[in-house]
Amino acid sequence: MSDSDRWRELGQQLRVDSIRASAVTKSGHPTSSMSAADLVAVLADRYLTYDFDRPDDPRNDHLVFSKGHASPLLYSLYKAAGAVTDDELLTFRKLGSRLEGHPTPVIPWVDVATGSLGQGLPIGVGIALAGKKLDRLPYRVWVLCGDSELAEGSMWEAFEHSSFYELDNLVAILDINRLGQTGETMHGWDLDLYARRAEAFGWHTITIDGHDVEAIDRAYAEALETSGRPTAIVAKTMKGKGAESVENKPGAHGKALDDPEIAIAELGGERDLRIEVRRPDHDAEPHRFETGPLELPTYEVGSEVATRKAYGEALAALGSADGLVVALDGEVSNSTYSEIFREAHPERYLEMYIAEQQMIAAAVGLQVRGWRPFSSTFAAFLTRAYDFIRMAAVSRASMALCGSHAGVSIGEDGPSQMALEDLASLRAVGGSTVLYPCDGNQTAKLVAAMAELDGISYLRTTRAATPVLYGPDEDFPVGGSKVVRSSDADDVAIVGAGITVREALEAADALAEDGINARVIDAYSVKPIDAETLHAAAEATGGRIVTVEDHWPEGGLGEAVLAAFADVEERPRVKLLAVQGMPTSATPDELLREAGIDADAIAAAARTLVGTPVAR
Amino acid sequence: MSDSDRWRELGQQLRVDSIRASAVTKSGHPTSSMSAADLVAVLADRYLTYDFDRPDDPRNDHLVFSKGHASPLLYSLYKAAGAVTDDELLTFRKLGSRLEGHPTPVIPWVDVATGSLGQGLPIGVGIALAGKKLDRLPYRVWVLCGDSELAEGSMWEAFEHSSFYELDNLVAILDINRLGQTGETMHGWDLDLYARRAEAFGWHTITIDGHDVEAIDRAYAEALETSGRPTAIVAKTMKGKGAESVENKPGAHGKALDDPEIAIAELGGERDLRIEVRRPDHDAEPHRFETGPLELPTYEVGSEVATRKAYGEALAALGSADGLVVALDGEVSNSTYSEIFREAHPERYLEMYIAEQQMIAAAVGLQVRGWRPFSSTFAAFLTRAYDFIRMAAVSRASMALCGSHAGVSIGEDGPSQMALEDLASLRAVGGSTVLYPCDGNQTAKLVAAMAELDGISYLRTTRAATPVLYGPDEDFPVGGSKVVRSSDADDVAIVGAGITVREALEAADALAEDGINARVIDAYSVKPIDAETLHAAAEATGGRIVTVEDHWPEGGLGEAVLAAFADVEERPRVKLLAVQGMPTSATPDELLREAGIDADAIAAAARTLVGTPVAR
Repeated sequence: MSDSDRWRELGQQLRVDSIRASAVTKSGHPTSSMSAADLVAVLADRYLTYDFDRPDDPRNDHLVFSKGHASPLLYSLYKAAGAVTDDELLTFRKLGSRLEGHPTPVIPWVDVATGSLGQGLPIGVGIALAGKKLDRLPYRVWVLCGDSELAEGSMWEAFEHSSFYELDNLVAILDINRLGQTGETMHGWDLDLYARRAEAFGWHTITIDGHDVEAIDRAYAEALETSGRPTAIVAKTMKGKGAESVENKPGAHGKALDDPEIAIAELGGERDLRIEVRRPDHDAEPHRFETGPLELPTYEVGSEVATRKAYGEALAALGSADGLVVALDGEVSNSTYSEIFREAHPERYLEMYIAEQQMIAAAVGLQVRGWRPFSSTFAAFLTRAYDFIRMAAVSRASMALCGSHAGVSIGEDGPSQMALEDLASLRAVGGSTVLYPCDGNQTAKLVAAMAELDGISYLRTTRAATPVLYGPDEDFPVGGSKVVRSSDADDVAIVGAGITVREALEAADALAEDGINARVIDAYSVKPIDAETLHAAAEATGGRIVTVEDHWPEGGLGEAVLAAFADVEERPRVKLLAVQGMPTSATPDELLREAGIDADAIAAAARTLVGTPVAR
Repeated sequence: MSDSDRWRELGQQLRVDSIRASAVTKSGHPTSSMSAADLVAVLADRYLTYDFDRPDDPRNDHLVFSKGHASPLLYSLYKAAGAVTDDELLTFRKLGSRLEGHPTPVIPWVDVATGSLGQGLPIGVGIALAGKKLDRLPYRVWVLCGDSELAEGSMWEAFEHSSFYELDNLVAILDINRLGQTGETMHGWDLDLYARRAEAFGWHTITIDGHDVEAIDRAYAEALETSGRPTAIVAKTMKGKGAESVENKPGAHGKALDDPEIAIAELGGERDLRIEVRRPDHDAEPHRFETGPLELPTYEVGSEVATRKAYGEALAALGSADGLVVALDGEVSNSTYSEIFREAHPERYLEMYIAEQQMIAAAVGLQVRGWRPFSSTFAAFLTRAYDFIRMAAVSRASMALCGSHAGVSIGEDGPSQMALEDLASLRAVGGSTVLYPCDGNQTAKLVAAMAELDGISYLRTTRAATPVLYGPDEDFPVGGSKVVRSSDADDVAIVGAGITVREALEAADALAEDGINARVIDAYSVKPIDAETLHAAAEATGGRIVTVEDHWPEGGLGEAVLAAFADVEERPRVKLLAVQGMPTSATPDELLREAGIDADAIAAAARTLVGTPVAR
C-alpha cells in the first residue's frame, strides 16, 4: 500500500471510529471529527514525533486539539496508534472512562483540556515558547483548529504572539469546514480571507484541499522547512465528510449520526489499521538554567513596603534558586514589579503585552513542559482571562497567578483598575489556592511556597506600601493565619487580610482605648482558610467576629469565614464589612473610608457587636 | 484664524490642560493624552456631531475613548466645548469629582466606562450596530484607540464584526504613539503593519501623520465618504508630544509631568479657546418596532420543560411586547434557544458568533442607546467575557445575561462546557441580580422581569428538562423565594435552586418515609436572596438547613444563604452541598450523584443534621 493509500484508509478509519465512538452514548461531535480526519491521518503517520509509551519524554512533539470537540477523532487516532484498545474507544463519554467528551489530561497523551474554543492555539503558543526559549529542544507543536473558533479574539492574540516570537516550531492546522454549530461561519470557504489575515499577522500560510492527502503531505513538509515564522495550513474540508447524510450539511453539529451503520458502510466499513508513530531520535535534553541558594528578600519590622514590590523581589530571588520558575506579565511589569525578575533572569521572563488571555494560555502551555510559570498583571485584568483560568483547572495545571492593585485602596485610577471580585472568582476555581498577604516578609514566603503548590494558586497584592509586621524568619503555611493581636480576654475578633490588616490593627488600638479587647487575625490564606484559628477566636470572644475586606461582599473573605462555621456547633455573629457601592477616584484613605472598610468603620462594627446579644 | 491654525491652537490647549489636570493630584496619563490631542481637536471642531446640552439626544454621535487613560484629554475637550469649567477640570481625580481617573458615565457625555484596554472599540461596535440596525439613525461612532491595546484579541473581534456587519458609521482612530507602559509596543511605528491587518479584516484604512492637522482633516472627510465598511485612521503620533522632557520618551507613562510649568511654556502657555461643536441638524427619530400584548409561554404543572427552552420562548414573547428587547448569542442559539427569538424577531437578533467578549461589549453598546439586550451563551463561556461584565457594572449598564448548560447536570460533554463558578462570579459583580429558575413558568416570569431591572441581571438555565412545579399565574419577585414544601413541624429545611429543587423534593419524599419533615425552599433569587424566608425556616426547624447547588462550594447559593444569617441572632447549622471534585463525562444523573448533590446526598445530609445538636 502506498503512503497515500494508507493515509486515505487511515482517514476513513478515523471517520468510522469517530462515528462508532459517538454512537455509544449517542452523543459527541462526529461530523466535526470527520472533516479533520485526513489532516490528522497524514500528520500522525508521517510527521508527528511522539512516543506513546513515554508521554513525558521531553523530546515529544505536542498535538493540541484546539477544536476539542473533535475528541472522537483524537481518541480514534490513539487507537490507530495502539495507545488505546477498540474496547476502550467504545467507552467514550461513559462514567469512569478517561475518554471524556472533550479531552482532558486525565489521558496521558493529552497535554491540556480543550473544549472552550479559541484556547488550544494560544496554549500551543506557550508550549512552543517553552520549546524555543526554555527547553531549547526541537519538538514541534501542532494545533488543530476549527474555523468557527477563529472568531475568538484569543486566536488572534496567538497569531500575534507566535509571529512576534518567531515560533517556527508551531503549526496551526485550520480545518475550514464552513459550518459552525448553528449554521455557516462568517466566512464559509473563503480560504483566501483566512490566509490573508494570518499573513497580515506575520505567518506563513499554505492553502490546500483538506481531503487531498498528497497536498496535506506537501503542506506539512513545507511547514517543517519554514523558518523564522509559524505556519498556518488553511485546509478546505467538509464537515461530516464521507457520509452522505451529513456531509457538508448544516444541522448535524454535535450529534451522533442517526444511522451510523449506513455511514460506516459508505466509508468502507470498519478497519483495524495500525500506524507506527515515529519516536524522537535525538539525544538532546531540556536546557536547565543555573541556580543557587534561595535568598528571599527580607524587610525590617516597622518599615513599609508594598506587597506588590515584595512579590517582584521575592520572585527574582526564587528564580535564582529554582531554574524552572518563569515570569510572564501583561505589559505592566513596572506596576506588578515583575520587572525585577526580568532584570535578574531575562531569559526566563516572557512579555505578553496587553493580551491577558494569551498570557494565561502561555502559562498553561509552559507548565505542560514542567516549567513553573508566575503570571502577573493588575488583578482587575485577570478577569480578562477568566475562561483560561477556569479551563486551566480542568487541565489540572499547576501555575501561579499574581494580581496587583487590588481593591479601592489603589486610589485615584478609579474602579476600572480596581479588582473587587477576584477573591470570589479565584476561590470558585477548581482546586485553587487563594493568598492575600499584608506584609513584605509574608509575601516573600508565600511566593516561594507557590512554586511548589499543585493547581492554580493566586496571590493578591496591594499597590500601597504597608507596614512590615512579621520578621523574616516567620513561616506562613498555606491554610494558616496569624493572630497579630490577642489577649486572654478578647471581646471581639477582627479578621482581615492584605490592606485591611493595617486598618484592623488601627481599629484595635482605638477599641483598646475604650477598654474593648480586639483579637486581630490576618487571614492571609483565604483558601484554604484557617478554620481552627477562627473557631478558637469565636469561642474566645463569645461569638463576635468582624470580617473586613477590600472587595465586594460576595464570595470573598467574609463568606469564606462564614463557610468555616457553617456546620459547627458554635456559630458566631459576624459583621461582614466590604465595599458596598461603586468606588470613584480619590486618595486611598478617602476610598477606604467611603467604602466603609477603614479603621473607623471596623471599630464601629466591633463596638456594635460587643454591645449586641450573640447567644444562639 | 484659519481652521488649521485653530486646530493647532486647540491641540496645544488640550495638551496644556491635560498636563494641568494631571498636576492636581500628581496622577493621571498626560503623555497618553498629548499624543492624541490633534486627532481630537480636528474631530471635535469639525466632524463630531454632538449636543452637549442634550446628551440623550438620539441623533448625537458617540465618542468613545477606548484608551480610557487619556481621560485628561477627554475632560480638556469638555472644557473647550464649554461643557465643564476650568475649575471643574482641576478637580480631576479628586474625591467627589465626576472627572474620575478613567471616564465613567457619571459624566453625562460619557457613554461607557473605559480604562480596561481593548473594550472601547468592541463597545463602539455595539453602538454602531444600534445605529445601523435598530435606531436606523445616521449618527457616527468615533473610537479613539491606543496602539498597545491592539494586542488585545477583543479588538480583533471588533475589527471582524464591524466589517462583517458593514458598519460604515464606525471610525477607529488609532493613536500609534509607539510607547506602551513599560516600553515600546510590539510594532512601534510600523503603521503599514497595522493598516494591512485592518485591511485584512475588511476595513478601509487611512495612514497619516497624527500631528498634521490638515491630513487629519482629510482623513475624517474620507472616512465619512466611505461606505460599506468601517474606517481605521492609522495615525503616527508621539507620546508626550510638545514637551521635550517627555516627547517620545519611554518611562513617562501614567505619571504627571515632573515640571509641568516648563512643559506648558513650551506648548505656548495656557489658553482659553472655545469651540462650538456642531449639533445634529436633521429630524430623524429612532426606529421603533411594532409591539403587542405580552403573552408569556405557559407550561402545564406536572409536565417537564428545560428552563433553557423556556428562556427562548419567553424571550420571544417578551420581544413581541417590548420593542426595545434585543437578543444576542454566541453561535449557540440552538442550545440556548435564543433561536426562538431569532425566528420571531429576526431584525432584533444579533448573531455574535464565537466571540463572547464582543457579544457582551455589543450589549453594553446597545443599552447606551436605550435598547434592552439579552445576551446568551453557555454559562461556562460567559467567563470569556468576565472583564466586560465587570466593566459593564462600572458603566452602570442595564442588560440581561443568560448562561445555559449550568453545572455537572449537563452530562456527557464534560467539565469544559459546565459552569461551576458562575453564581460566584456573577454575584461578585457590582449591583448585579442573579436568578436561577427551576421550572418553565418561573423562567418565563423572570425573563420578563429582567427587562425592567437596572444593572446587570443574570439568569442561569439548565440543559435538562425539569418538572413544572408552578402554575402560570404565580409570581416570582426578585428577592423572593418559594417554599415548595412545608408543614407545621418541619425538622430541617433544604434550600436549592435550579436543578437541585427537583433533587430536594425527591429527598424530602425519602425523608418523609422516615418521619422527617423537610421544608423545601426554591431560592430562585440567589442575589438578592430572600433572607426573611430563610430566617423563618431556620427558626421553624431549630436551625437545621441543607443548601445544595450544582456549582462549586465557593461564592454560590450556600454562601449566599450563610451571608443571610451572618449578623442575626438565630444562626442555623448549615450543611453546604456542592460539587467537590472535578467532574467528568457521564449521564446527568450519574454526575449529580458523583458530585454529592443528588437526592440521596441531600437526604443523607438532612438526616445527619436532624440527628445533630444545633443549639448555639
